[in-house]
Amino acid sequence: MTERQRPIGIFDSGIGGLTVLKEIFDRLPAENTIYLGDTARVPYGIRSPETVTRYSFENTRFLSSKDVKILVIACNTASSVSLDAVRRSFPVPVVGVIEPGAKAAAAATKRKKIGVIGTEATVRSSSYSRAIQAIDPAIEVFGIPCPLFVPLVEEGWTDGQITEMVAERYLADMRQKDIDTLVLGCTHYPLLKHVLSKVMGDGVTLIDSAIETAHAISTILAAQGLTNIPGQLVRHEFYVTDSPQKFLSVGERFLGRAIENIEKIQLEMEV
Amino acid sequence: MTERQRPIGIFDSGIGGLTVLKEIFDRLPAENTIYLGDTARVPYGIRSPETVTRYSFENTRFLSSKDVKILVIACNTASSVSLDAVRRSFPVPVVGVIEPGAKAAAAATKRKKIGVIGTEATVRSSSYSRAIQAIDPAIEVFGIPCPLFVPLVEEGWTDGQITEMVAERYLADMRQKDIDTLVLGCTHYPLLKHVLSKVMGDGVTLIDSAIETAHAISTILAAQGLTNIPGQLVRHEFYVTDSPQKFLSVGERFLGRAIENIEKIQLEMEV
Repeated sequence: MTERQRPIGIFDSGIGGLTVLKEIFDRLPAENTIYLGDTARVPYGIRSPETVTRYSFENTRFLSSKDVKILVIACNTASSVSLDAVRRSFPVPVVGVIEPGAKAAAAATKRKKIGVIGTEATVRSSSYSRAIQAIDPAIEVFGIPCPLFVPLVEEGWTDGQITEMVAERYLADMRQKDIDTLVLGCTHYPLLKHVLSKVMGDGVTLIDSAIETAHAISTILAAQGLTNIPGQLVRHEFYVTDSPQKFLSVGERFLGRAIENIEKIQLEMEV
Repeated sequence: MTERQRPIGIFDSGIGGLTVLKEIFDRLPAENTIYLGDTARVPYGIRSPETVTRYSFENTRFLSSKDVKILVIACNTASSVSLDAVRRSFPVPVVGVIEPGAKAAAAATKRKKIGVIGTEATVRSSSYSRAIQAIDPAIEVFGIPCPLFVPLVEEGWTDGQITEMVAERYLADMRQKDIDTLVLGCTHYPLLKHVLSKVMGDGVTLIDSAIETAHAISTILAAQGLTNIPGQLVRHEFYVTDSPQKFLSVGERFLGRAIENIEKIQLEMEV
C-alpha cells in the first residue's frame, strides 16, 4: 500500500459521524476509509471531559493500528474536549469538526451574531465560541444545548409537528438574539436541516459541520500530497464496539447507502 | 454490623433506579442502602444483551464487595437480560423489576389484556410477556418501545403538550388493543404517570414497577428475618461511574430529596 492509499480514519461515539463520512464519500470518492463507531459507550455528550478524552485515546489507538493517513474526530463532544490532547499524542494530522464549522460560520455571519446548537457537553465546553472568537473577537456567540434532537433523529422523527415544536422550544431564545448564522454543532443535526431552517427562517444560514470538515480533510490531504489517485478499487471498513444491528438499521439512513464490511471489536481499555 | 444491618444493594444504568430507591425509602425507612448508577455506560436500553450482562456482573461484583444482604437490579433492561445469570452466580437474594411488575399487572387485569412500555431492549426481550404468561397463559400482552420517554424525563419535560403528543403517538396502537392495564416497564416512566394516565384514560390501570419492587424486597427481607430494626442511624451511599454532576442535578428530582455521600468509582472490568 502506498502512502496515498492509506485510509482516512474516522471515529465517532456512534452513528452521528456517518454524516461526515457521507460528505467524505461525496467529495473524496477515491479515498479508502475506516470508520469506528464506539456504540458500546454512546452517547459521549452526557459524559465528563476526562471520560470522553479517555475514550478518544482508545479510539485513536485502534485507528492508528490500521495505519490511517489522517484522523477525523467526527464527534463534536470528542472534538470539543479531546482534540488538542489527541493531536499532541499522535503523529498523523488530526481534524475535528469544531474548527471547520467555526471557520465557515465566521465567514458567513454579516451581523456578527452566531448561534451554536449541540449536546450539553459541546455547548458547555464553549469550544465553538473560543474557535469563532479566535478568528474574530467581535463576533457574539450564543449556545443552546438541545438534548432531545439526537433521540428524535435516531427515532427517525426528522420531520413533523412534534420535532418542530421541540425545535421551537429550544430555539425560542435564540430567535430573540438576532443571529444570522446557526452552527449545527452535532453530527446528528444535518438530518434536521429542514425543520431547523423552517423554525429559524430564511434569514439564518445553517452551517453544516460535516460538509466543512470534509472540505478541511480535502485541503490537508492535498497540501501533504496524500490525496489518493482515482481509478483504483476503494474499500470502506466499519467497526463498532457493540452489536452492529442498530448501527446498520439507523446508519444506512444517515449514510444514504448500504453499509458493508462491518465488524464488532473490543477496544483495548486504558487502566 | 449485624446481618440485619447490612445494606440493600441497588444498581441501575444511571438515575432511573432512583425511582425504586425512593419507594424503598418510603416503605423500608430503617434500611441502609447502597446505590450504584453506572453513569459512564448509560443507557443500557440500546446495547446488546451480552454487553448488558457483562455490565450487570461488574456492577454486582462491586455491590457484593460492599456486603449487601439483598441485590436489586433496578433497571428493566438489565433485569430483562441478566437476572437469571446474576442469580446463578451470586449467593444473596436478587430481585429484578420485571417479576414484581408482571405479578401486579396479572393481578390487576380484568379483560386479560396488558400493555407494556419500555426501552427497545426491554420490549424486544419479551421478558414481561414471559413473566405475565407464566402466571396466566390466557393473558394477552402488547409491547411498545418508547425510546423518547427517557430523554424527555431527563430533560425535565414530564408534562406539557410536546410530551403528550409523543405519548399519543407511541400509544396510538396500544389504545386500539382494549387493554385495561399498562406496565411502566422503565424506571424513568413513573415521572410520566400524569401524562400517561391522561393519554390512556381512567379505564387503564398503570403499574409502577418501582412500587411493586419495593414490596417484593420487603417481603423477601421479612421472610429471611433480615428486616433491619428501626430506631438506628441509617446510612445511604451513592456511587457513580462518571462525574456526579448530572446525577446530582437530575437525580434529586427523581428521589425527591438531597443526595449525599456520593463517590465516583472505577469498576473492575471483565476482560
